[in-house]
Amino acid sequence: MKLSRKIELCQLSPIRKFYPYAVAAEQRGIYIHALNIGQPDIQTPNAYLDAIKAYRENVLSYAPSPGIPSLIEAVQGYYARLGVRYDASDIVITTGGSEALLMTMMSILDEDCEVIVPEPYYPNYHTFIRMAGGKICPVPTVAEDGYRYASRERIEPLINEKTRAILITNPGNPTGTLLTNEEVRLLADIAKEHDLFLICDEVYREFIYDGEMTTAAALEDMAENLVMIDSVSKRFSACGARIGALISRNKTLIEGAVKIAQARLSVATLDQIGAQALYGVDSSYFNETREEYRRRRDVCYRKMKEIPNVVVAEPKGAFYMMAKLPIEDAEDFQMFLLNEFDDNGETVMFAPGSGFYATEGAGKSEIRLAYVLCAEQLERALDVLRKGLEKYLQR
Amino acid sequence: MKLSRKIELCQLSPIRKFYPYAVAAEQRGIYIHALNIGQPDIQTPNAYLDAIKAYRENVLSYAPSPGIPSLIEAVQGYYARLGVRYDASDIVITTGGSEALLMTMMSILDEDCEVIVPEPYYPNYHTFIRMAGGKICPVPTVAEDGYRYASRERIEPLINEKTRAILITNPGNPTGTLLTNEEVRLLADIAKEHDLFLICDEVYREFIYDGEMTTAAALEDMAENLVMIDSVSKRFSACGARIGALISRNKTLIEGAVKIAQARLSVATLDQIGAQALYGVDSSYFNETREEYRRRRDVCYRKMKEIPNVVVAEPKGAFYMMAKLPIEDAEDFQMFLLNEFDDNGETVMFAPGSGFYATEGAGKSEIRLAYVLCAEQLERALDVLRKGLEKYLQR
Repeated sequence: MKLSRKIELCQLSPIRKFYPYAVAAEQRGIYIHALNIGQPDIQTPNAYLDAIKAYRENVLSYAPSPGIPSLIEAVQGYYARLGVRYDASDIVITTGGSEALLMTMMSILDEDCEVIVPEPYYPNYHTFIRMAGGKICPVPTVAEDGYRYASRERIEPLINEKTRAILITNPGNPTGTLLTNEEVRLLADIAKEHDLFLICDEVYREFIYDGEMTTAAALEDMAENLVMIDSVSKRFSACGARIGALISRNKTLIEGAVKIAQARLSVATLDQIGAQALYGVDSSYFNETREEYRRRRDVCYRKMKEIPNVVVAEPKGAFYMMAKLPIEDAEDFQMFLLNEFDDNGETVMFAPGSGFYATEGAGKSEIRLAYVLCAEQLERALDVLRKGLEKYLQR
Repeated sequence: MKLSRKIELCQLSPIRKFYPYAVAAEQRGIYIHALNIGQPDIQTPNAYLDAIKAYRENVLSYAPSPGIPSLIEAVQGYYARLGVRYDASDIVITTGGSEALLMTMMSILDEDCEVIVPEPYYPNYHTFIRMAGGKICPVPTVAEDGYRYASRERIEPLINEKTRAILITNPGNPTGTLLTNEEVRLLADIAKEHDLFLICDEVYREFIYDGEMTTAAALEDMAENLVMIDSVSKRFSACGARIGALISRNKTLIEGAVKIAQARLSVATLDQIGAQALYGVDSSYFNETREEYRRRRDVCYRKMKEIPNVVVAEPKGAFYMMAKLPIEDAEDFQMFLLNEFDDNGETVMFAPGSGFYATEGAGKSEIRLAYVLCAEQLERALDVLRKGLEKYLQR
């Protein structure tokens, strides 16, 4: 009873292996500062649950396969405020950004096709691409250069007859790197010149701390090539809603996505109703949330820069930071922190870097920190990390 | 910008093409009796929305990837009442039965692998199998024989080195065919002898009108081979909840499913909370619902048998019936009913049969009726169908 080759090439979450050790540490009375996962602690707007509570139908029916029209309209309205006009038929509501990614990969990848992805990248891209039979062709970047990747020299040599798309996260997870206006334009040009899809995951678009966000959606000449991946998860701190969207003016691609959407029937009805209400929150919500994350970003960057021999690039957006530590193996360091270290009964968890890379051996000295704790706790957590690193280096 | 071969091999819903004609008929003032889709009109138990309304967390967080433990426990409890013991780790909560099917296919199928499926079958099986790179190998059945398929003579000749699984719906959609105890045992034996997965979609298990339901889950010797597809959609008339489950004692298969579950992060949090509450409804709910569907089944079968030259097998379960009409092309008949016919301002929609078959040209004389309307409306709808057929044959 063997499994498929593609599922064997997928991985269990690399964070999972630390779980039993974290439980054991907690059982010894150790408090763990969790910087390892991107679950925000920001309150979900009440509008979500209020809208659901107002549901009055007797039968909880299937929603239309491409999404409830009023939610699609809300997404259109959101993009209109960014100056981008989408038709209702350009939008397919999905079960989280995750399903939008899966539908895209299924629609464009055949066996052994390649997707160019700057590394480090969001690890679940790997699984969605593998499920469709494809593989990641990584664009290497380095911490010292702020993980920048958007240049012809880095990308064009990777394009071959198997390449189908360039997939980017802007602002970046795990790096916080923000593309300039010129870089977005360049990526669009490369995609057009080589007949590739440009898949833009901009789910952290609201969280920009320096510079200007250039949304690829605004590029009018990219109708055929551009696929936008959207989600309410981070935008409205509503990760558990599992509402996202696949957006493209490419009619053929949308038809492919709709085939899948029809097969899985619909996205959860009440969550769509809740998500629609989220799009009505006051813009002050975004401002307040952004300022909160900016405070955390500032703490995180300052504290990490103070640690000797650590390389960090200041994140310009999202709520993650990569850091290169003066160690050989971040997984070994994580095990040390869970099994052999505490500072006043506290320790810390992060996401080891190698899970964010496709290149064998890359990222082993790096860690990803999610700054999803309040600034005060973050100060303390990073002190604990620094002390842990000192102890680890003295062994 | 071409799409993948696998998405080209998927189809848009065959019902979709009638949509503009249905809209046009409604604009002419025609009332359409909708027997074409399996959306029940039975009230969803209040427990669902009540549980969601009681949600009190400030942050709508991701749920655990394999599902919320208390929902998994509720599913375990449900199977325990059927006399079947599952461990919590045998169950992965999914976004509808749809995602359970997709995860299963992704986990077991490589390019060009085959799944044996009795036809007529639930059309979305085709898309999930295609998405994984595989294809359906149909077991032909005939209306005159009650669409039965469970025999060695029919199935074993179809098994080859590319076969990975046998996929059945019991009771059947679209046929209402119910497997006997001996037939379930035989299918299990065939799967074991040939090292195949037996994928059992028993989402209509509660709706049995004659005979006894034998759940494959009760077969103790099938730990390695059996995959159960589960859903609350029909069981609790909660299609819009999108809560299902993949259940298997095969640890390797579950590990494959969990890889996908982790990549898509989680199933919607509130819907899981609502679904958990559904499992607490009184068993009288199932009895009342079953009796309601039985009345409808009786009307549907009686009315269809009264129409000359129609072949129907009495459905033993689920809420569908296939009928073979004395016509060449059910799609053409549907177009006639929408464009050229009405009886006192009323017409009827069904699902044309060919969409339920993989064999080229099969099922063209057949239609699927979903008896999801109350008995009184069903009487009238089937009178309209009979009159439409008479007119169609007289042209």
